[in-house]
Amino acid sequence: MDRAGWNTPALLIDEQRFERNLARLNRRLARLGAPLRPHLKTVKNVELARRMLAGHPGGATVSTLAEADHFFAAGIDDLLYAVGIAPGKLEAAARRIADGVHLTLILDHPDAARAVAGAAQRLDTNFRVLLEVDADGHRAGFRPDDPVLLESARILANGGATPAGVMVHAGGSYACRDRECLVRMAQRERDGAVAAAGALRAAGFEAPVVSVGSTPTAMFAQDLTGVTEVRAGVYAFMDLVMAGLGVCELDDIAVSVLTEVIGHRREHGQVLVDAGWMSLSRDRGTADQAIDRGYGVVCDETGQVLSPEVIVSATNQEHGILARRDGESLKLHDFPIGRRLRILPNHACATAGQFEHLWLADPEGRPVRKLERCRGW
Amino acid sequence: MDRAGWNTPALLIDEQRFERNLARLNRRLARLGAPLRPHLKTVKNVELARRMLAGHPGGATVSTLAEADHFFAAGIDDLLYAVGIAPGKLEAAARRIADGVHLTLILDHPDAARAVAGAAQRLDTNFRVLLEVDADGHRAGFRPDDPVLLESARILANGGATPAGVMVHAGGSYACRDRECLVRMAQRERDGAVAAAGALRAAGFEAPVVSVGSTPTAMFAQDLTGVTEVRAGVYAFMDLVMAGLGVCELDDIAVSVLTEVIGHRREHGQVLVDAGWMSLSRDRGTADQAIDRGYGVVCDETGQVLSPEVIVSATNQEHGILARRDGESLKLHDFPIGRRLRILPNHACATAGQFEHLWLADPEGRPVRKLERCRGW
Repeated sequence: MDRAGWNTPALLIDEQRFERNLARLNRRLARLGAPLRPHLKTVKNVELARRMLAGHPGGATVSTLAEADHFFAAGIDDLLYAVGIAPGKLEAAARRIADGVHLTLILDHPDAARAVAGAAQRLDTNFRVLLEVDADGHRAGFRPDDPVLLESARILANGGATPAGVMVHAGGSYACRDRECLVRMAQRERDGAVAAAGALRAAGFEAPVVSVGSTPTAMFAQDLTGVTEVRAGVYAFMDLVMAGLGVCELDDIAVSVLTEVIGHRREHGQVLVDAGWMSLSRDRGTADQAIDRGYGVVCDETGQVLSPEVIVSATNQEHGILARRDGESLKLHDFPIGRRLRILPNHACATAGQFEHLWLADPEGRPVRKLERCRGW
Repeated sequence: MDRAGWNTPALLIDEQRFERNLARLNRRLARLGAPLRPHLKTVKNVELARRMLAGHPGGATVSTLAEADHFFAAGIDDLLYAVGIAPGKLEAAARRIADGVHLTLILDHPDAARAVAGAAQRLDTNFRVLLEVDADGHRAGFRPDDPVLLESARILANGGATPAGVMVHAGGSYACRDRECLVRMAQRERDGAVAAAGALRAAGFEAPVVSVGSTPTAMFAQDLTGVTEVRAGVYAFMDLVMAGLGVCELDDIAVSVLTEVIGHRREHGQVLVDAGWMSLSRDRGTADQAIDRGYGVVCDETGQVLSPEVIVSATNQEHGILARRDGESLKLHDFPIGRRLRILPNHACATAGQFEHLWLADPEGRPVRKLERCRGW
């Protein structure tokens, strides 16, 4: 590696924007009276996680057991593992609980509840479980009024596990096109969670936890009555998908990939850089939005957008091609070989997920401090 | 982690298929009289690299300086770094050369040649450089008859660097739809390289290296007269894009992601697994082929394709959704919660790139030996 240990491509985090993003959601949730359980799958770093957790005593959310280990080793011990538990991971989960992790699992199928109940007895472990509820048909979850929800809670309780409440993720909010849709999705997420918790309580379960969230719904919720925690992760970095949804502006995006010009495609008026899909990821989350940003928006080295028209239009493993969205030629003399640029990514989690390290950047965009990220499963 | 240290999702390599794939390309190239310089960006692992290099004394190809370090540490010291050199990486490259790496760079712009010549003098390093030539308008490279090619060679030579020949990558071959196109692309790649080397030689340069390659062209070349080395990487693992091109069959694909069923989408006849885009990658390389395979084809735990119709139709970070391509419902009782499956990926490099480790699998598909992969830049 070069210079102070960095090299291109590098993952940069603009600290000022990061802190501003945290403050914004914190203010919103304080107003709504709902605590945050930040999702750490976006940052995957202990120092940034601690900043997200500041003022929120309710623990964090993770997407892998590797993240659980990473953050538990740093003293973050209250962790919701928010992916439907695979029966093959129950022994590993029991070991974490024995080690002192206050681990909560989720599931949405009675057979998964049977697997947890069986493992609870076999491994003598009191698994704490949230029942995943579907409010928008996006991915997973019981319908709030599905009798199988109650059946699964009973299977857990009878097996010596603890059905501790419900969780909803309105991932469908990512497909919204306007503010009204986001407000409606947030309401639906809250209503589904509260209804399902109500059904559990009516059936005699305590169900203390009513967990909702996604960055778009967290940013647009108008009423969180009955919700005990809100999960969000992308809000810390923001990205082009969030900007396309109207959840943030381009200059709120705290995450970018530092790259360098390595060539010109003269006859196409295009520029080659050393950031390909291995660093940017293959995520094309803006492809279905009103403005397709290709693989990202190009900024100068300090993080100023050159023009919203200048994007990464194509990628190979370690090559990116810069082009104008309108098909006009770039002025190649503005992109001399060796010029450093930054790329704002479509999807913060996907792009950051390509890196083992991130760099905190100074206001001029220079990488100044290297932080480790959790990887793997 | 669980069991013998593995967990889902895990990257599995079928050793028999891997060895069969190596033997196939080796036989072809032996017949054509061209040595292989395998591209290690696909396997990113020392043991598999050594098997690819067996019988080929001409060194290897890498896509990052991190790969160069990784393989040099294991004694693989003749390395072509096949991405246009970023001027900001020349000091790092010079350090590798001083350490004993027989490193070759590439470039395709006279300003890059000036940067290399300047660094050669400043750092007292004899950089060995191939001039990248464009045979198909795919990405980068001088046109074979472009006077700037000769100008760049002169800039290098005058600056004390060594223009050692030419390299061509016919990446356009990935867009072929039939055998004739692949044969034509291979011919064009060879002809462009030989023509450019001829131009250099006519201008007084020795240009001993004439390097061509991509997996599709390596597998379909009919004549490699004048070529001194062939580069290929994907051929070792193969993938759905290669199967879609007619370069291999589904049962040649040696790479897969082991996953577990975690839920059902009952009303959609779909199945949730614990392999999302964080493990499969966001690559959608089959989207533009005759058969769109979604995010991958589903196999049983031993690697037998369930049906070419059953694919991963959508992904989130740690969730995959299995569905039938024809929109019919899956028989959910065939996918009990906890069932293990394997996913054949669209693009071997992209999917393997998501993992820090790979597992060699036994014939029943059980992960038996864990190998480290190179990561980062």
